[in-house]
Amino acid sequence: MSRARDGDRNGPARRQLLLAGTAGVGAIGVGTAAIGLDRSLLRTAAGQEDASAAAGVLLHGSETVPFHGQHQAGVETAAQASATFLGLDLREHVDREGLIRMLRLLTDDAARLTQGLPALADTEPEMATEPARLTVTFGFGPGLLERAGTEVPEWLAPLPSFEIDELEPELGEGDLLLQVAADDPLTVSHAVRMLLKDARAFTAVRWVQHGFRRALGTQRPETTQRNLFGQLDGSANPELGSDHFSEVVWIDDGPFAGGTSMVLRRIRMDLDGWDEVDRVARDNSTGTRQDTGGPLSGGGEFDEPDFAATSEHGFPIIPEFAHVRRARGVDEGEHQEIFRRPYNYDVPPPAGSEAVSEAGQIFVSFQADLLRQFLPIQQRLSDLDLLNQWTTPIGSAVFVIPPGCAEGEYVGQTVLE
Amino acid sequence: MSRARDGDRNGPARRQLLLAGTAGVGAIGVGTAAIGLDRSLLRTAAGQEDASAAAGVLLHGSETVPFHGQHQAGVETAAQASATFLGLDLREHVDREGLIRMLRLLTDDAARLTQGLPALADTEPEMATEPARLTVTFGFGPGLLERAGTEVPEWLAPLPSFEIDELEPELGEGDLLLQVAADDPLTVSHAVRMLLKDARAFTAVRWVQHGFRRALGTQRPETTQRNLFGQLDGSANPELGSDHFSEVVWIDDGPFAGGTSMVLRRIRMDLDGWDEVDRVARDNSTGTRQDTGGPLSGGGEFDEPDFAATSEHGFPIIPEFAHVRRARGVDEGEHQEIFRRPYNYDVPPPAGSEAVSEAGQIFVSFQADLLRQFLPIQQRLSDLDLLNQWTTPIGSAVFVIPPGCAEGEYVGQTVLE
Repeated sequence: MSRARDGDRNGPARRQLLLAGTAGVGAIGVGTAAIGLDRSLLRTAAGQEDASAAAGVLLHGSETVPFHGQHQAGVETAAQASATFLGLDLREHVDREGLIRMLRLLTDDAARLTQGLPALADTEPEMATEPARLTVTFGFGPGLLERAGTEVPEWLAPLPSFEIDELEPELGEGDLLLQVAADDPLTVSHAVRMLLKDARAFTAVRWVQHGFRRALGTQRPETTQRNLFGQLDGSANPELGSDHFSEVVWIDDGPFAGGTSMVLRRIRMDLDGWDEVDRVARDNSTGTRQDTGGPLSGGGEFDEPDFAATSEHGFPIIPEFAHVRRARGVDEGEHQEIFRRPYNYDVPPPAGSEAVSEAGQIFVSFQADLLRQFLPIQQRLSDLDLLNQWTTPIGSAVFVIPPGCAEGEYVGQTVLE
Repeated sequence: MSRARDGDRNGPARRQLLLAGTAGVGAIGVGTAAIGLDRSLLRTAAGQEDASAAAGVLLHGSETVPFHGQHQAGVETAAQASATFLGLDLREHVDREGLIRMLRLLTDDAARLTQGLPALADTEPEMATEPARLTVTFGFGPGLLERAGTEVPEWLAPLPSFEIDELEPELGEGDLLLQVAADDPLTVSHAVRMLLKDARAFTAVRWVQHGFRRALGTQRPETTQRNLFGQLDGSANPELGSDHFSEVVWIDDGPFAGGTSMVLRRIRMDLDGWDEVDRVARDNSTGTRQDTGGPLSGGGEFDEPDFAATSEHGFPIIPEFAHVRRARGVDEGEHQEIFRRPYNYDVPPPAGSEAVSEAGQIFVSFQADLLRQFLPIQQRLSDLDLLNQWTTPIGSAVFVIPPGCAEGEYVGQTVLE
């Protein structure tokens, strides 16, 4: 991406130096596995004449992810560091025509903001100039499709209630989901505000959830993240950009072809209780080692667990209640897959509480077939998973993510028209 | 910083390549003004054999800021991207001896965590390995000094109440302040948790405030940040590392020599109201241009305002009510300075609220002499400052930041003993 930068105090001489310097780094980068990051960051490095690139910080603020395309961005996009999830409810007066007008407005905002351009009525256009891989992903709840007079897929409904759930209705469901994510929290904050300004005549805010992951550059982009329990989380994800990913995530026929289903669950993690669990018990509860993420049966993070392995006393090395065994459905002979794209949350505990934290995970998964991929996993984990002892789902929502749109279209157009 | 990395899959050959590549960037970096970042980031680049450095991302996760020294870290430290501020109240049973035991524990935690080492009793030691310039800064309220039997400086008390204040007591004051800041929010979250685990037997949490700034690398480190109004904020700060900074910030004699005073105020910003203000009115309210940060009298962000300049009709170009004029005390012939190190906050609006945001600034300032530097500025701004129309202080706290400590000492030792 190239664009003029206000206030740049560096001349052509420095630019030449930098191009030389960063090209050196770039050449080494060819062939690495940091999907979606390697080429784009090189573009930043080469396209900006910048003192801090010289100082050893490669700038990523002007990085963009394309908005238009077959799929919406923000799913098969290497997870950005900050995200805000908005659950919105359509106001009563909004009819099909109004709904489409709103989607046109929000699509236009998203198309501009994600490319580093101010939204049309942006009163702080200076805040839009660092998109930092901003994506805005639209999800539709059943209420939105009904309002549009569009058939609601059978699976698009609240999940069945699970025994482990303690759902707070104000943290779940909604007619419209906006997932706003970028590598910079100020960018997310500004984009959310612009979107809400245009959405507010049509919708009321049902819930807002802020999440975070490791900042860009804190660790290698291809490194699996740890959740707040300290566990490597996401090792089993299909690889971005692979055929396997497409099979797991993208719906391949029907009106939503090119889209996917999204489950968003707010899962409170009892960090105080977890503190009292020793390392052996922790590792048994997951079936993996906290330090390396490798299965207890041996090997590293990406090695397959050997669920048949037994100890010298004949007990399974990966216990029957272990999360990794239950998630895989080993004992039922099944193996479903989903793509997880979760964020951490950590908010002040309620006033007067003796708790030292109110924290957990905004669990987000995408899968082509909610009923056949997500549900069996969730049901097994609800039935038996030692981790349940320290985790409580407190919010839950299901959305359909419509396919991406072409320039001039609005998100969802092929579905609603 | 050099340390073994678990799971590193790169061999010496790649290391050599990287050293060559990053050294090229490094050489260009010499002489830039990114204080506290240039050298340290180069160290990261050279010290890590890492695929993502090759991909164009220079890793900053292992960067450290020294914990021990004449001054506490986290003041004259280039502001990190994420910060959590904790206001803690001593439990009734804690006597002087217990207080010192707690400070020893927390000092030990902070000394370890900031250097990338797990705290003693850390049940997630894997979470401590990316300090990302973590600093933990201790501040004492009057209650802590009283409990220790130490004389309380006259200025260490709640600020006088200002007409603009709508303070919520649960967001202000406290016996012990911990400012925990790093370039990575997961690092901050883990450090806060470790500190609170050790503090909880001695203190109750009074308030927790999370703040954010631009992510590292989103813009050049030396660039002034915009606040959520879109204004460049902090242009007038003394330069880190300068003699001028020391004069403005560090107390130079008495028991707190090497320390400073800290004001922390939570300032709600009415973004909805601000939206309705056009650009001319916005610029008049601050006396500066929103786009460049330059004064209305002409010039760029760092040029001095010409407060005497008048329009052709004889009116002052920088209005009498303008923030920049009031902050400087031009009309009273005064010119006090403080060092501001603020963070943004943006939290979900209260349930059922029609507001689309609950956002603002965690205003943080450090100054050697609270009464002579901070108070006159605050009084003038309270008396007249057009920006007050869209800002409301809802929390306020004053702390003394004791000087830094040497290895083997605890923070505050020279003050309390």
